[in-house]
Amino acid sequence: MPKIICGEAAGCINGGRLWDRMFDLAQYGALPNGGVNRQALCDEEILARHCLVRWGKAMGLEPSNDAAGNLFLRYRGTQPNLPAVMVGSHIDSQPTGGKFDGPYGVLAALESVEAIIDAGIRPQRNIDVVSWMNEEGSRFAPGMMGSAVFSGARKLEHILEIRDKAGISVERELKKVLAAEPDVPRRPLGDKPAAFLEAHIEQGTVIESANKTIGVVTGMQGKRTFHVYVTGEESHAGTSARRTRRDALVSAIDIVHALQQAMWDAEDVTQFTIGMFTVSPNAPSVVPGRVVFSLDLRHPDAAKLRDLGDEIPKICQAARGRCEASVSQLLHDPPLEFPAAIRQLLCTAASALGVGWMEMPSFAGHDSRYLHYVCPTGMIFIPCQDGISHNEVESIRKDDAMDGARVLAESVLALANATSAIWP
Amino acid sequence: MPKIICGEAAGCINGGRLWDRMFDLAQYGALPNGGVNRQALCDEEILARHCLVRWGKAMGLEPSNDAAGNLFLRYRGTQPNLPAVMVGSHIDSQPTGGKFDGPYGVLAALESVEAIIDAGIRPQRNIDVVSWMNEEGSRFAPGMMGSAVFSGARKLEHILEIRDKAGISVERELKKVLAAEPDVPRRPLGDKPAAFLEAHIEQGTVIESANKTIGVVTGMQGKRTFHVYVTGEESHAGTSARRTRRDALVSAIDIVHALQQAMWDAEDVTQFTIGMFTVSPNAPSVVPGRVVFSLDLRHPDAAKLRDLGDEIPKICQAARGRCEASVSQLLHDPPLEFPAAIRQLLCTAASALGVGWMEMPSFAGHDSRYLHYVCPTGMIFIPCQDGISHNEVESIRKDDAMDGARVLAESVLALANATSAIWP
Repeated sequence: MPKIICGEAAGCINGGRLWDRMFDLAQYGALPNGGVNRQALCDEEILARHCLVRWGKAMGLEPSNDAAGNLFLRYRGTQPNLPAVMVGSHIDSQPTGGKFDGPYGVLAALESVEAIIDAGIRPQRNIDVVSWMNEEGSRFAPGMMGSAVFSGARKLEHILEIRDKAGISVERELKKVLAAEPDVPRRPLGDKPAAFLEAHIEQGTVIESANKTIGVVTGMQGKRTFHVYVTGEESHAGTSARRTRRDALVSAIDIVHALQQAMWDAEDVTQFTIGMFTVSPNAPSVVPGRVVFSLDLRHPDAAKLRDLGDEIPKICQAARGRCEASVSQLLHDPPLEFPAAIRQLLCTAASALGVGWMEMPSFAGHDSRYLHYVCPTGMIFIPCQDGISHNEVESIRKDDAMDGARVLAESVLALANATSAIWP
Repeated sequence: MPKIICGEAAGCINGGRLWDRMFDLAQYGALPNGGVNRQALCDEEILARHCLVRWGKAMGLEPSNDAAGNLFLRYRGTQPNLPAVMVGSHIDSQPTGGKFDGPYGVLAALESVEAIIDAGIRPQRNIDVVSWMNEEGSRFAPGMMGSAVFSGARKLEHILEIRDKAGISVERELKKVLAAEPDVPRRPLGDKPAAFLEAHIEQGTVIESANKTIGVVTGMQGKRTFHVYVTGEESHAGTSARRTRRDALVSAIDIVHALQQAMWDAEDVTQFTIGMFTVSPNAPSVVPGRVVFSLDLRHPDAAKLRDLGDEIPKICQAARGRCEASVSQLLHDPPLEFPAAIRQLLCTAASALGVGWMEMPSFAGHDSRYLHYVCPTGMIFIPCQDGISHNEVESIRKDDAMDGARVLAESVLALANATSAIWP
C-alpha cells in the first residue's frame, strides 16, 4: 500500500478556482437553458481542449495527445521513467447535457495537480491529467472510445470507421481535432499507467440519500447495447390498405412493446432504455419504410445480463410482423469490481480528511471500465442534485466538488509517491 | 354541358415529349435509387420551376406566380376576360418520393396545351397550367398549402409562419423561391377560375385490377391530421431507476398502442398512419425527454371520421402514463364529391377516345380538394405500378400517361370553349 495521507496537497485545493473552471469550460457548447451540447470531436470540444492546454501550460504541465484523441497534461515527477499515475475523465457531453458530467473529473484532476504544485510537492512518478475522447457515445456510438483504444479493448482502425447520423466518420473529425493542436506533441498509444483514478458526479441519489459526501466506487454494473433495424416498405398513407402495408413503425412499436414486457423487472434492478429511435422517411403522409432504434441493457449480475441480452434477437424476430428485423450488438461489457487496495486508499484518504464517505456501485459506465483492464483503477463519486444527469439542469454543490478534489489530490499523491509496483 | 369532344387536340398529344419531360424534371432532386427528393420550396424545386417556365415560354405561354408560390403558365384565349380554365397539379415530392406523383399532372396539363396549340386551336377561354405550392406537406405541414391559400381555405399570413424541423419558415423559403423568378410577373391571389382539372397517378391498384386505363374520380375521402406531443424528463440510462423515470418514449409507445387498437377496422376502410415520430434528444444512453409524432386519419364517411378523430385526445390522455401529452389538430377535411357534370365530361371524353375508364373515389388528398370549393373541379387517375407511391420505385406506363393526357386535352378544350358559365 502507498504511503498514507498527510493532507498538505488537500490543504491547497482551491474550491473557487475549481468551481470557476467548471463554469468557464461550460461556455464551450453552452445551451440557452444552462446546459451544454459538446458532443465528441465537435468544434466546441476543440476549443474546450485548447482551454485545458492553456490552463495546464500556465501551471507548468506538459501537454500531449495520442492518435485516439486522448489529451494528457503531465506534471513531471522526480523519477520520470516510472509508469505514470493517471487521473481524469472526459469533457464531451450529451446533446442536451449538463456542465459537470465529465468535466468535474477532468478539472478535479487538474485542481489536484495544481494543489500538489502549490504545496511545493514534486512526487516521484509523473502525474498525467487525462481527458478521454468520446465517453458519451451520443454522436459516435459506442462511447468510451478513447479509453477503449488506449487500453487495447478496441482497435484504433475500427473506431476510425464509425460514422455519425450525418455519415461523418470519426477519422475525419479526429483528424480535424488533432490538426487544431499543432503545438501539442503526439505520444504513443497504449502506455501502461501505474494506476488510474477518476472522479465523477454520481448521476443518482445514493450518496445524497445517505447524507454522505463521497462515494467510493466498488465496481460497475454490466452493460450491453444493440441496434435494431426494422425494414418494411414505404407507401402512401391515403391509398395503401392496412392489410397490404409493411409499416416499419407498426412493427417497431410491436417489437418495443414485446421487449419492454420481457425486460420488466419488478425489483427494478434491470435497466432497459430505448434512447434513440429514428424513423424514415419521417414524413406525416408516408407509411414508414425503416426504423432504427437503440437498446441499452444494464445489470449488475453477469449471468442475468447475458441471458436477458441473448433473448433480444429472438424477441425481435417473434414480434416483427410483416417487416424484416435485424439486431446487432455494439457492446457487451460484463460487470466488474475495482481492486480492494485502491478502494481502501480512497476510503483512507476520505477518513483522514474528515470527509463523509460510503462504498457504492456505479450504475453508469465510465472510462475507468477500460483502464481497469490495464492498471489498478478506482473511482470516487460526488453527489449531484436529485440524481439528475444527462440533462441541462444537472447541478452539484461547490463544497462537495471541493471535498472530492481533496480526496482525489491526496490519493493521487500517495500513488505517485509509491516507488515500486503499486500492487503486490 | 360544354361542346363535345372532336379528338383534334388528343390527336396531337406527343407521348414521347411528355415522357421525356417527366424524366427531365426528375433530374431536379434525383436520388440514387431512381426516386426524387424535391420537397416544397427547396433549391431543387426552384430549378424545376425555372425548367417549367422555359418549356412554357418556348410554346408561347405567359408565366406568372402568386404570393403563395403557385406557378401559372397561361395560353391566352380569344376572350381573355372570361374566367380561365385551370389544369395542373404539383411538382414537390416526398423526401424519398417517385418521379410521377405530382409532375405527371403538371406535365400532362402542359402537354394538353401544347397539343391544343399544335392542333392550331385557340379556345375562347384562357387556359392556365398550374403547379400548386407544397402539396405533399412533408417539409412544411400540412400539405396542399398553395391551393388552400388560392381557394381562400387558408390565410397566406397563417402559412407564412409555418416552420420546418430546422425552424426555417415558409415565409423565408417562399421569398427565396419568388426572388429567383424576377422575370415572372406576380398575379393577384384568389382569382376565381371557370373550372379546374387535375390528372394524377392513382397511388393504388383499383384501375390496374379492373384492367382500365383511366379512373374518373368521384370524390375524396375525408382526412384529419394531428400532432401529439409527449413530454417527460431526460435522465441517465444507467443511473435512473425505472420507477423514477418519466420516459417520453415509453409513454409515446403506450399511446400509439392504444390508438392503434382504437382505430382498428376489420373492414380496412379506416386509414390510420403514424408517418412522423421524432424522439429527443435521441441519444442511446439518455432516457428520452420528448417525443412528437403525427397522426393521419382518413375515412370516406364524414360522421365516422369526426367520431374517430374526436376520440384521439381522450386516448392520448388515458395512455400517457407518467408523462404529459397534448394533441393539436392540423387539418379536418370532410369527404367530398366532385360535380356530376364534370365527371360526365371526363367519362365522355374517355369514351369518345376509346380509352377504357371507370369511376372511383380518391383515397389520397389532392389540390383538387381546395379548388372544389371555388369552381367546378374534376380529376382523372392513371394506373401506377402495383399501387406503389411515395416511394422511389414508383412507376407508370408510357401508354397510360399518353392516354391520360389525351382525355385531359379534350376535356380542357371543351371547358375552355364553353362561352357562358359552365354550370347551370
